[in-house]
Amino acid sequence: MTYDSTNIFAKILKGELPCHKVYEDDIALVMMDIFPQSKGHTLIIPKAASRNLLDADPAALSAVMPLLQRVAGAVKSATNADGIRLAQFNEAPAGQTVFHLHFHLIPAYEDVPLGAHASGRADDAELATIAKAIAAHL
Amino acid sequence: MTYDSTNIFAKILKGELPCHKVYEDDIALVMMDIFPQSKGHTLIIPKAASRNLLDADPAALSAVMPLLQRVAGAVKSATNADGIRLAQFNEAPAGQTVFHLHFHLIPAYEDVPLGAHASGRADDAELATIAKAIAAHL
Repeated sequence: MTYDSTNIFAKILKGELPCHKVYEDDIALVMMDIFPQSKGHTLIIPKAASRNLLDADPAALSAVMPLLQRVAGAVKSATNADGIRLAQFNEAPAGQTVFHLHFHLIPAYEDVPLGAHASGRADDAELATIAKAIAAHL
Repeated sequence: MTYDSTNIFAKILKGELPCHKVYEDDIALVMMDIFPQSKGHTLIIPKAASRNLLDADPAALSAVMPLLQRVAGAVKSATNADGIRLAQFNEAPAGQTVFHLHFHLIPAYEDVPLGAHASGRADDAELATIAKAIAAHL
């Protein structure tokens, strides 16, 4: 399995495609998932190129964790979620659909069953509002 | 939310309860989940005490990632899985049931739908065999 630099996240990282950006630094880009599994579903995309966890530079994995933790707290605060799921998929049978390493932070709400996720693309104005709210909590 | 040191993983880390151990070092204990969501479901339990991701020491999070990556590769090799899911739950509404930080590595198999997991406690002899196979790939 090799890294294909034409994947959609690589294009977003290069600025060739738009995204609902929350935050960006040398280590990672943080943005909203446009097909959210719940309100506030956020992606952390390390800038170092790897297909997924299995072929990543271990140092790049270590480097992203403090940011991922900060984003998890900000997502929880901004959304008033009751919990947060971290998920990361490796290869298609595990659910991976974009082959550039990324981590999902999925808010959980007490009154919404897990798995009862929206089945379509979210509204852009709503995504922009949530991105701004999360950024304000970072 | 505070850390309760009487949780079951704290007791396992102290050697007060048994487990199907795969590996242990200063940073983490790696063991089989006794209620596996698929064959080879493995847990990485950082030794540093925290309730979950939200209150963890950022340095402890960084420290565990290279090991987690190695374990993911070993689980995939030992089980011949077609993919690996990483999951980590924060607070009960997100699915957390033991309140000591832990990461799930859940093998995915092409011929077994995700979510079609076993609903009971796995056989101890089978868990011991898989633990040994994963350890041999580390």
